[in-house]
Amino acid sequence: MNDYTLKQLVDKNFDYYKNGEVANYIPALAEVSPKQLGIAVYDLTSNELMKAGDVDVRFAIESMSKVPVLLLAIKDCGIKKVFETINTEPTGFAFNSIMNMEINHRKHPMNPFVNAGAIATTSLISGKDANEKFERILSFMKQICDDTDITLNKEIYLSESKTGDINRSLAYYMKGNQMIDEEVSETLETYFKQCSVNVTATGIAKLAAVLANKGIAPWNNQRIISEESATIVKSIMTTAGLYDESGEFSVHVGVPAKSGVGGGLMAAIPNSYGIGVFSPALDKFGNSAAGIQLLKDTVQELDADIFQ
Amino acid sequence: MNDYTLKQLVDKNFDYYKNGEVANYIPALAEVSPKQLGIAVYDLTSNELMKAGDVDVRFAIESMSKVPVLLLAIKDCGIKKVFETINTEPTGFAFNSIMNMEINHRKHPMNPFVNAGAIATTSLISGKDANEKFERILSFMKQICDDTDITLNKEIYLSESKTGDINRSLAYYMKGNQMIDEEVSETLETYFKQCSVNVTATGIAKLAAVLANKGIAPWNNQRIISEESATIVKSIMTTAGLYDESGEFSVHVGVPAKSGVGGGLMAAIPNSYGIGVFSPALDKFGNSAAGIQLLKDTVQELDADIFQ
Amino acid sequence: MNDYTLKQLVDKNFDYYKNGEVANYIPALAEVSPKQLGIAVYDLTSNELMKAGDVDVRFAIESMSKVPVLLLAIKDCGIKKVFETINTEPTGFAFNSIMNMEINHRKHPMNPFVNAGAIATTSLISGKDANEKFERILSFMKQICDDTDITLNKEIYLSESKTGDINRSLAYYMKGNQMIDEEVSETLETYFKQCSVNVTATGIAKLAAVLANKGIAPWNNQRIISEESATIVKSIMTTAGLYDESGEFSVHVGVPAKSGVGGGLMAAIPNSYGIGVFSPALDKFGNSAAGIQLLKDTVQELDADIFQ
Amino acid sequence: MNDYTLKQLVDKNFDYYKNGEVANYIPALAEVSPKQLGIAVYDLTSNELMKAGDVDVRFAIESMSKVPVLLLAIKDCGIKKVFETINTEPTGFAFNSIMNMEINHRKHPMNPFVNAGAIATTSLISGKDANEKFERILSFMKQICDDTDITLNKEIYLSESKTGDINRSLAYYMKGNQMIDEEVSETLETYFKQCSVNVTATGIAKLAAVLANKGIAPWNNQRIISEESATIVKSIMTTAGLYDESGEFSVHVGVPAKSGVGGGLMAAIPNSYGIGVFSPALDKFGNSAAGIQLLKDTVQELDADIFQ
Repeated sequence: MNDYTLKQLVDKNFDYYKNGEVANYIPALAEVSPKQLGIAVYDLTSNELMKAGDVDVRFAIESMSKVPVLLLAIKDCGIKKVFETINTEPTGFAFNSIMNMEINHRKHPMNPFVNAGAIATTSLISGKDANEKFERILSFMKQICDDTDITLNKEIYLSESKTGDINRSLAYYMKGNQMIDEEVSETLETYFKQCSVNVTATGIAKLAAVLANKGIAPWNNQRIISEESATIVKSIMTTAGLYDESGEFSVHVGVPAKSGVGGGLMAAIPNSYGIGVFSPALDKFGNSAAGIQLLKDTVQELDADIFQ
Repeated sequence: MNDYTLKQLVDKNFDYYKNGEVANYIPALAEVSPKQLGIAVYDLTSNELMKAGDVDVRFAIESMSKVPVLLLAIKDCGIKKVFETINTEPTGFAFNSIMNMEINHRKHPMNPFVNAGAIATTSLISGKDANEKFERILSFMKQICDDTDITLNKEIYLSESKTGDINRSLAYYMKGNQMIDEEVSETLETYFKQCSVNVTATGIAKLAAVLANKGIAPWNNQRIISEESATIVKSIMTTAGLYDESGEFSVHVGVPAKSGVGGGLMAAIPNSYGIGVFSPALDKFGNSAAGIQLLKDTVQELDADIFQ
Repeated sequence: MNDYTLKQLVDKNFDYYKNGEVANYIPALAEVSPKQLGIAVYDLTSNELMKAGDVDVRFAIESMSKVPVLLLAIKDCGIKKVFETINTEPTGFAFNSIMNMEINHRKHPMNPFVNAGAIATTSLISGKDANEKFERILSFMKQICDDTDITLNKEIYLSESKTGDINRSLAYYMKGNQMIDEEVSETLETYFKQCSVNVTATGIAKLAAVLANKGIAPWNNQRIISEESATIVKSIMTTAGLYDESGEFSVHVGVPAKSGVGGGLMAAIPNSYGIGVFSPALDKFGNSAAGIQLLKDTVQELDADIFQ
Repeated sequence: MNDYTLKQLVDKNFDYYKNGEVANYIPALAEVSPKQLGIAVYDLTSNELMKAGDVDVRFAIESMSKVPVLLLAIKDCGIKKVFETINTEPTGFAFNSIMNMEINHRKHPMNPFVNAGAIATTSLISGKDANEKFERILSFMKQICDDTDITLNKEIYLSESKTGDINRSLAYYMKGNQMIDEEVSETLETYFKQCSVNVTATGIAKLAAVLANKGIAPWNNQRIISEESATIVKSIMTTAGLYDESGEFSVHVGVPAKSGVGGGLMAAIPNSYGIGVFSPALDKFGNSAAGIQLLKDTVQELDADIFQ
């Protein structure tokens, strides 16, 4: 695999954007051009980053933020505290379902990658107020993506906050059932902000490379997260990274992954590759239409399905 | 790792049987002595089988049968037909839940490892009647476990059939909703029989070794199942192999696995190991209490967590 | 109100059959002509039966059978035993839902007018076998409808039995959860038969008149059921008589009622009227399209809404 | 029936308070003495108000407020608009369930007497802000209870607001699903206030008398609400007035009723009686323990079961 092969895969899969539509629940996402596709692959063996297509275009991280915020929560509170607060089971329900907590008389959100669990994760981030919490998240994202240009997209943040009533409902449900301790409005402000950060496919590939590399940044050999947390997070990405399509994705692609409605996809293949993909048109499940196809082809080309 | 190390791990974990109880919903299971623990590890690299403890004791395969029957259904009907009939999503519900099909207006059982999906899988097995279907299953089990002594335990079969009303309910629900085509009583007779087969930890380790070895029996280099089906089944074992505890197991142990209420555990680690464990006392989730601990220690000793 | 006024209401509402369709899940129902409408009103004050339209046409009693079978179960076992077995809560779910028992961890079917509760009710009928149970039901129906010509429609019975898999699922679910004691196949045979009995709107009006008249047949002043059971059954008809449309019907019509997919409707207005309606074309909720409109107009004409 | 008979019934049922406990989720309710029982019966025939026990003690109206606020919403918006916003089906779920809206893909809260539906009802009250809305509700309550001394209990209001996270969750869920239009915080402020109003059993009996008397205040013959709205509200009180115990209450007592965790009970018997009961110790379903018994005895003494 090299940049040229990767470029061929991008060209082959480009037109799949026609099978999707860009997220339209907020204007700032609706205006993004669907005709974009890019992939960055960090190869741990050669310690090289391969790229093709729109890998340096900035886009909203959205649900992919659940991965670095979970990692930071573990750094802040420890694995025990985090997983006493949030379970690690796939749900079989949509990402924004509130029913799955009530239906099984759960005392905890089911996993950190559905919205309820992600909000509970955010509530565990240290900081004296929403501002400090977010600054700590932003700083951690810059470090783990090796990208100092990550910034808050205020327009997206304001839209997320304005349209975020289902997330408010989830948060108050958890607060009312003693599933989270922190102030709801502060937690949600932080959560909406963490979703509204601008990243690139290159940065996401680097984040994924840290996960793939047992927690050590391969570009400078510094440990960013513990090996145990890297292992656990890849496991949860496999069972619950793509919401109620996690099982099907796992069957067809077979790598730990996480998607976002900004059109991003992250895949962390243990000891081999960190991958970042971007293409904003989404399929009916909210995953990047062309991105999924490109990721599938790339994994196949790399012979990297972890269940093979 | 060698037999001696394995023996030490068995000794270390033996007493965990005290944290569990043998299944008591039928007499034939209730009478089994809880004080048993054994493990067999098929090492694909050395092509050797390591053993310690009660590896040749016969016990009921129960839900582990869902793995070979799924493999046989794929051989009989092809991957496409099987997964048009049965989805591959984890459910978040107990193994015998009927609600999860109605609640999300599912047209298919959610995965082949909850009871509904397993019954639908059995309905796809070729054969002119229940008897021929079961004989084909039994024959396939003998081949893939490399164990010609596998037989039907009639006492268990009769008990399973007698107490199987929830499975009847699941089957008629699917039949009434056009989720399965075959005759219910015939499908259930086959299903109850496939659960009532006597196996050993050694045989299960060999079955798992075939899965781990891309479908080829390592003991004679003959292909038993396609590489693609081996890959897919390991993926589903990861996301849904331990019912509504699959996510937690995946976090803590991190290998494709399947359990049974007979006290068996199977783990298939791609390209490395096939593992069979037996210890009949079950924890509150229905998984072998000492078996899970022993499997966890063994995976750690082998450095075999696939998310590491 | 007299026969002439009633005839005018029938004419006024006749065309509403165009808003519905006859039940088509079994041939014997699908072949019934939708162009039929009839109503019989038993006036307790004048002790007269008013009639208009197709009141003597025979049609399948279907779910309206749940009322006389509940009354007979109370006679056989007593109120206490019956309502220890079956709850009396409306469900908010469809008549054939299985989820509502699992979702709230119910130990009993929620009420006698959803299918699960009706099957449990049938299981309480005395008799040495399915045949004797059904003969006792048939005999009781003849008495309470004052109609010796009621017979089993064998064609409908065979079709109900053939297509009854969801009911089998409900029954086995209850059996497997110790909610019913009797043999499932025997109970279902009786249940399918009780649904397949041919009645007339006139007979149904008389049954309803007994309920309305505190349990005494107004045509001969003989007590058929206890006053208490008549009161309770009218109450359950109000909260749960029309499945998940009971609340809306209660708001718009306001009388204790029960419907059947054969196109029948029964209404029992305390101390005033017993009403039987027949028109086989059903609205989307499975209730007689023209029948509901005619019943509503009639109740209004009689000034008989019990909440007025 | 006269005051003396009523007094005897109070004495007979007084000790049932020992079967319950006062609501303890907020201090202001937890401090109320459980040793209180009172009943007021407005007899429409004699146009007299009978009383016994603690009928003039002030207590929090809580969920009984759902009745007058529904009546005011109908006055403000009309029956059509109100019931296009809120359904009229019983739910089978607890008063504060959020799942029942998601589970059946409901576009509307299921009825005005579960919390979700009550909050949606409050959102329909006219007024330029929360303050004006509440003042209009308070003024309407004073009129329909014929009680100018009704005031807001600020301590209870502040506690309700502080502990009201589940209600916030319900409100944001509806807002996020376009089930309500109004500002959530304003609607909830009004809702928490309407629950925190101090009433007496006497006032509640008068409110119920208006409902029983087709909308006309029997004490001055002035129409307060339309006949149609009085009819509809009594119907919904019957099918859904006591949450997921409505069916059982309807079977055992058989009158349109509504309860509140302040210990109040209201019953409106068409054309006969308006009843107010107060006793603060609650049974496990949140209904007044002694109050239910006293109401049952009183209805029996009055021969007023509407299903009789």
